[in-house]
Amino acid sequence: MVARMQALILAGGSGTRFWPLSRRVRPKQLLSMAGETSLLQTTASRLSPVVEPQSIWVCTTERLVDSVRQQLPQVPAEQVLAEPEGRNTAAAIGWSVSRMPAELQTGVVVVLPADHYMGDPEAFRATIQAAADISLEQDRVMTLGVLPNRPEPGYGYLELGDELDPTTGLRQVLRFVEKPDQATAEQFLAGGNYLWNAGIFVFRGQVLLDKVTEHLPELAQGLRALEESPEDLAEIYARLPSISVDHGIMEKLSDLGTLPLDCGWSDLGSWEALWELLDRDSDENATSGSVLAIDSHDSLIFADQGTIAAVGVEGLVVVKTGDAVLVIPKRRSQEVRRIIAELEQRRRNDLL
Amino acid sequence: MVARMQALILAGGSGTRFWPLSRRVRPKQLLSMAGETSLLQTTASRLSPVVEPQSIWVCTTERLVDSVRQQLPQVPAEQVLAEPEGRNTAAAIGWSVSRMPAELQTGVVVVLPADHYMGDPEAFRATIQAAADISLEQDRVMTLGVLPNRPEPGYGYLELGDELDPTTGLRQVLRFVEKPDQATAEQFLAGGNYLWNAGIFVFRGQVLLDKVTEHLPELAQGLRALEESPEDLAEIYARLPSISVDHGIMEKLSDLGTLPLDCGWSDLGSWEALWELLDRDSDENATSGSVLAIDSHDSLIFADQGTIAAVGVEGLVVVKTGDAVLVIPKRRSQEVRRIIAELEQRRRNDLL
Repeated sequence: MVARMQALILAGGSGTRFWPLSRRVRPKQLLSMAGETSLLQTTASRLSPVVEPQSIWVCTTERLVDSVRQQLPQVPAEQVLAEPEGRNTAAAIGWSVSRMPAELQTGVVVVLPADHYMGDPEAFRATIQAAADISLEQDRVMTLGVLPNRPEPGYGYLELGDELDPTTGLRQVLRFVEKPDQATAEQFLAGGNYLWNAGIFVFRGQVLLDKVTEHLPELAQGLRALEESPEDLAEIYARLPSISVDHGIMEKLSDLGTLPLDCGWSDLGSWEALWELLDRDSDENATSGSVLAIDSHDSLIFADQGTIAAVGVEGLVVVKTGDAVLVIPKRRSQEVRRIIAELEQRRRNDLL
Repeated sequence: MVARMQALILAGGSGTRFWPLSRRVRPKQLLSMAGETSLLQTTASRLSPVVEPQSIWVCTTERLVDSVRQQLPQVPAEQVLAEPEGRNTAAAIGWSVSRMPAELQTGVVVVLPADHYMGDPEAFRATIQAAADISLEQDRVMTLGVLPNRPEPGYGYLELGDELDPTTGLRQVLRFVEKPDQATAEQFLAGGNYLWNAGIFVFRGQVLLDKVTEHLPELAQGLRALEESPEDLAEIYARLPSISVDHGIMEKLSDLGTLPLDCGWSDLGSWEALWELLDRDSDENATSGSVLAIDSHDSLIFADQGTIAAVGVEGLVVVKTGDAVLVIPKRRSQEVRRIIAELEQRRRNDLL
């Protein structure tokens, strides 16, 4: 009998993109951006019944581990793992899988970010179940690629090879393409041969650990050292190679498979992405909290505390928390990172 | 011997134009908009040594009288008069002058708003002194008109008649023109025959009261009733005709005189007007408080509490208080009144 599927939720993100709402101690995944529950809570509950709470693992940082356990009381506390520091996704995934009991490592693990949005959870569950079946039968590492609906230059893409199985729609991943330019992104969309890389992976635990040994021997060595001397976690962890699982492993696999994911996915990567998802009024404004929008259009006005009054604004993001206000054109909302950089330079830790 | 000059500062304004900084209980005149002291305090101290504190009178409302007395401890408390309700400037001026002792009424009174800015106080004092001399010698009511430096359609204008006296530059006022259209304002500026109506008047007290009797007999009657039954202030005051001193008296005078005032005057009538006066950085941003302005230009960013971070904004006013945020294009900052109207409709007295 094969072990039931485990889910590993990566919840270590620092969430600077939703400043001033997101902060170091309450990053995006812990916030209710688009619903009643936090993105992390939604990510966990969305897995059910394909993956039940007792089979959920969360990899986060020491700074956030208490908040994560509070938000997910149904997940066994010892399955909420705290990295002493962030060492990128290859280390996070390798370490987390290596912490699972050996019998679970024989089964399937689905790895997914804590802070994505899915409009159609049913379709999402069906796709991970199908990917899990393939990875179990074929010992194949799978990634779920999102069916693109616009020429988005901000994402990573998966180039697809031949269809390997007409029943499941399984296709091979030929290569990873990082953030193309606009023209290339348009070609990708038109050609129909590319999917967005959503950072969702499905594999048998032991298969992933074998790939680590093959492609990232230094990481494999570190994981063995951690198994032997778990009391030296901080010291050993600090020396693990810091590389993404995409670069370190997935891009090197000759048999990486994918299934297209068509579930109203959004990475919620910016205030603009949030605006896209939220209900909007007849002026295309999405508002939250106490907001007066007069002769204003196409804007996201988000009052976490207090009142925002806007007159005559167009395509703007305005966010108010108790201590800070953000004003930025919606189409430039990725540039919130410039504020983070400036706050770091000014050592305004109170605002980070 | 003639009584020394008295000043009457009109400080009853509700100051909705600087929302959210100004509120009903702390209108613009009580705020430090452009300096260390409040506009009211600056207005009072600017008069010295032409008018000393013991000769200053302030007409305000019951809601503000305590704050005014606190801000002006050097002004005798009994000279800070509290209207039971606002009945426009004719009533405020008539009542305040009638409250002065008879011997002061034989002297000159200068009436001025509490919330204007003067870049050159010396020039201002010289002009009111010159106007006072004329009003005393000729029993003439004088108004000070500001020398315009731009075709401003938002102001009232004084059309000038002949020069009556080449030594003083005294000119007659032919008529008042309310807010002209842009083309007319440009003609006014080009012709050089128009001044801005700044609401500053200079007259002998008794002369003004005679003009009230002549042109606003109903008001004169009310003032007499108040002298006879001061204990019925609220009841009698409520029945005083509500009309501006401009419409009720000044426009009806055939011998109204004026001197041009050239003192870097601003009525500080909007956030845009404040931006004009404030020091600005090389990107033409005027900022106050904790502000991060990245790739932003031509904007007023005013953080009364907390931090404002702006990226990529142009020509915008952003103001943050503890409980509210305003975002409005600078050139439309007069439209703050639309927010006030909306807040009144929503009965958000906490924000008014």
